Amino acid sequence: MTLLYEGKAKRIFSTEVEDVLRVEYKDEVTAGNGAKKDYIEGKGRLNNQITSHIFNYLKENGVKSHFIEQISETEQLVESVKIIPLEVVVRNIAAGSITKRLGFDKGHVFDEPLVEFFYKNDDLNDPLITDDHIKLLHLASETEIQELKASALAVNQQLLNLMTDMELRLVDFKIEFGLTKDGQILLADEISPDTCRIWDAHSDTNFDKDVYREDTGSIIEVYQTFLNKLEAHK
Amino acid sequence: MTLLYEGKAKRIFSTEVEDVLRVEYKDEVTAGNGAKKDYIEGKGRLNNQITSHIFNYLKENGVKSHFIEQISETEQLVESVKIIPLEVVVRNIAAGSITKRLGFDKGHVFDEPLVEFFYKNDDLNDPLITDDHIKLLHLASETEIQELKASALAVNQQLLNLMTDMELRLVDFKIEFGLTKDGQILLADEISPDTCRIWDAHSDTNFDKDVYREDTGSIIEVYQTFLNKLEAHK
Ligand SMILES: Nc1ncnc2c1ncn2[C@@H]1O[C@H](COP(=O)(O)OP(=O)(O)OP(=O)(O)O)[C@@H](O)[C@H]1O
Ligand SMILES: Nc1ncnc2c1ncn2[C@@H]1O[C@H](COP(=O)(O)OP(=O)(O)OP(=O)(O)O)[C@@H](O)[C@H]1O
Ligand SMILES: [Mg+2]
Ligand SMILES: [Mg+2]
Repeated sequence: MTLLYEGKAKRIFSTEVEDVLRVEYKDEVTAGNGAKKDYIEGKGRLNNQITSHIFNYLKENGVKSHFIEQISETEQLVESVKIIPLEVVVRNIAAGSITKRLGFDKGHVFDEPLVEFFYKNDDLNDPLITDDHIKLLHLASETEIQELKASALAVNQQLLNLMTDMELRLVDFKIEFGLTKDGQILLADEISPDTCRIWDAHSDTNFDKDVYREDTGSIIEVYQTFLNKLEAHK
Repeated sequence: MTLLYEGKAKRIFSTEVEDVLRVEYKDEVTAGNGAKKDYIEGKGRLNNQITSHIFNYLKENGVKSHFIEQISETEQLVESVKIIPLEVVVRNIAAGSITKRLGFDKGHVFDEPLVEFFYKNDDLNDPLITDDHIKLLHLASETEIQELKASALAVNQQLLNLMTDMELRLVDFKIEFGLTKDGQILLADEISPDTCRIWDAHSDTNFDKDVYREDTGSIIEVYQTFLNKLEAHK
């Protein structure tokens, strides 16, 4: 089947079924918009399993996504959507770019979850944008923006429930949404330690890509531990 | 009287009257957050006269500000306010940072005026912020944010009327607001070619600080021409 898109972490293929795509998770990891880059055997398998687990959990809890089913260690089937070029970030605790950008201390707990939009545009380096920018750039309407925010917060609430149960702290995460053929907004892409920050509730340990960004641990060990925890949960 | 604050373009003094400040416009110009800096004799006089003229014009057209009166070539009296640490930018046409940040072509006319907020914080380099950031940073409430936007758009409408009449194009401008002792939001600071982009309607000429930023002309000649136009109007 045709390779439709190759990104930094996944390959997207068409299938014989219309509107169904095959996503293959790659054994590659990048940070800093590709500035740091490595081949890490076993990472694709872990992210595919974790994303499948989380999308299944979300489905059980009433949050729909593009996810159809996991079909192999490194592959899953998803519904094809037209990705809205926005990275939707939800933050419960300050970490990463927002500490530099706005001066929040790392670990600062926000009064309420914060939703931020970044314009998915490699040439512009994925800049932060406001609702008014989104409208002027014709990326989404006011109604769609409000729906994106509400959906992002609903995902956050479900993930918070899950992580709290697992004695983990959900710091922040990035999701993407797309439009289905009939114009519905659907959660898409992946939810994995590549796209979340997850801290242990009782220690300094973290279970996310920061171990790679900051060279503080082995991605494989850390992602495997997180997957084990997920699978052990209920 | 005591010098309360010395900025890059103005000195603020207390007066013998409570809640009345004296603003002295300096013969200095900076660009790029102070990276480029010059002493330019006569600039203080021009900015004081232009700001006084514009605040008077706004007052005649129902837009209140901190401005009380011009008291000398380089000085004016204003009402003391607690400045809200936001630079409120209104854009009618794309120029400057937004062309680099979001890829709009210089000269692109927006579908409708755009209001942007930047966090006045030198250490952070005045970053762009969203409404939600403003609330999390406790800089303004939702109601205040909406009032700031509405006021900024009202100022824009009045300035557009004036500039169009003068056969000029108002590209963008930056304003600041403050809180009076009784909690009212009041337009403050200055409105001058230092804080606006103004293009000629029929030629490539511009009447603003870009002549200094881009080394394309003499600030004194350009600001004086703009002041003459303002004084000749009606
Ligand atoms: N259901 C879907 N339908 C179509 N495209 C999708 C779907 N889910 C995710 N995508 C897109 O597939 C690509 C996933 O690849 P990957 O995560 O490797 O990309 P990336 O390197 O992050 O690059 P970018 O997201 O900037 O394109 C992304 O462009 C993502 O937006
Ligand atoms: N009515 C007012 N009451 C109190 N402060 C004011 C008033 N109007 C303006 N200001 C403040 O006075 C200062 C004006 O000085 P100037 O424009 O030189 O500052 P600046 O170099 O731009 O620095 P910054 O704006 O970052 O403080 C600004 O800090 C501005 O916010
Ligand atoms: Mg991706
Ligand atoms: Mg100033």
